Amino acid sequence: MALITETYLRAQLIKGLANPFPVTEGDKLTPAAADFLKERGIRLQRVASEPSGTLPPNFLPVGVSNRHVHLAPHHIDMLFGNGYRLTPLRELSQKGQFAAVETVAVKGPYGSLSNVRILGPLRGATQVEISRTDGFELGVHPPIRLSGDLADTPGITLVGTKGTVTLNEGLIIAKNHVHASPEEAQILRLNHGDRIHVQAMGERSIIFADVIVRVSPQYSLDFHIDRDEANAAHLTTGDTVQIISKNAERRLR
Amino acid sequence: MALITETYLRAQLIKGLANPFPVTEGDKLTPAAADFLKERGIRLQRVASEPSGTLPPNFLPVGVSNRHVHLAPHHIDMLFGNGYRLTPLRELSQKGQFAAVETVAVKGPYGSLSNVRILGPLRGATQVEISRTDGFELGVHPPIRLSGDLADTPGITLVGTKGTVTLNEGLIIAKNHVHASPEEAQILRLNHGDRIHVQAMGERSIIFADVIVRVSPQYSLDFHIDRDEANAAHLTTGDTVQIISKNAERRLR
Repeated sequence: MALITETYLRAQLIKGLANPFPVTEGDKLTPAAADFLKERGIRLQRVASEPSGTLPPNFLPVGVSNRHVHLAPHHIDMLFGNGYRLTPLRELSQKGQFAAVETVAVKGPYGSLSNVRILGPLRGATQVEISRTDGFELGVHPPIRLSGDLADTPGITLVGTKGTVTLNEGLIIAKNHVHASPEEAQILRLNHGDRIHVQAMGERSIIFADVIVRVSPQYSLDFHIDRDEANAAHLTTGDTVQIISKNAERRLR
Repeated sequence: MALITETYLRAQLIKGLANPFPVTEGDKLTPAAADFLKERGIRLQRVASEPSGTLPPNFLPVGVSNRHVHLAPHHIDMLFGNGYRLTPLRELSQKGQFAAVETVAVKGPYGSLSNVRILGPLRGATQVEISRTDGFELGVHPPIRLSGDLADTPGITLVGTKGTVTLNEGLIIAKNHVHASPEEAQILRLNHGDRIHVQAMGERSIIFADVIVRVSPQYSLDFHIDRDEANAAHLTTGDTVQIISKNAERRLR
């Protein structure tokens, strides 16, 4: 027995919807779901109940990252004064990570962004993560990279309360990715380095293709996207998306 | 004989990449394409040349719509003075449509957007199209709709040189869609009302699922998306995307 919604049907589109569409005893369709099938000329077919225990839905929670900065120790000294320590504002989904009370201004050749949040703890290298939309505002167009992959990225200027830092590199647009602990990865049958297709299931059923999975005891389950991706897919932190395929070799059925 | 690029391989991921991957005599791989296969543990297999005349690539040109306004005749009078006529600035991809020299300010409950372009010619009902990002700036969150479908949409305030109009409805986020003339649709084997999956093939290989196809002699071939979708998929007007499946019944292979 299941409640079949338009959102569910829309998420199934990529795999193809059978015509007639099988519904088991006790299944209910929402009026929007019934319209959705009718619009496409898909009829309903009553079938016997399936045994339970078939594949579980593969859902991932969404974490939307707004523009932010990770600082190296020598840069925090230059921006806020020698020996300055960040004040945690709130914990983030990944263990030990926090949003700080402190912010910086980010200045580009064309414009600037004020009140850009600093995330802690400190890192070995300073990294500034913006969206493509932010890049148009700043007048700089960084590549799409995974965190930490800073070779051949552009620099940018940061302004703190006590000083200014002009970076030679470190500005990126974050590449979307999935974080998972080993236990979570096992439940979802994911391995470190897997590349998956993930679909938003709301009003804008975008599919994120070739999303990299990163597994570590430090991680908690999260599908990390930036604000442009969130707005394009109509997603908000705490929404869920569905894994619809895994790795290139596995064909979508 | 073909040049196999990383972009091409990335676009094929949704269908699955064979392992070993077949290459015919004369095919060349770019270094990035070779790395792409190697990273995934996919080997190469030389095979005899295929007969030519297999499925043509199904490409669509991209048109990115920034926020804009379509005005009804009585509203242009209120905003710019009685009998005012728009001055065309440049032609748009769709026949007879133009961007006007004139702009309005759009005022929401939270903030406002200045210099929002008016598109001509005039329409029966005033319609304001924004992105979700713009909605956060204005403080209003309209639904995602196809052009003209304005029932139960929120209103907004427009400010011109001679006056102000407060709409009761007409604010939408545009639903992405494909425009095609009957001739273009025939070449691409598309019909009015088809729902297709379309993939961006650049650094961000997003798939737009369930995109509606609209065919009319008034139309020219274009895949219309808004600025959020363009930034999330790293697309710009004039880029191309690929049709990767058509309608729910056809399974992806």
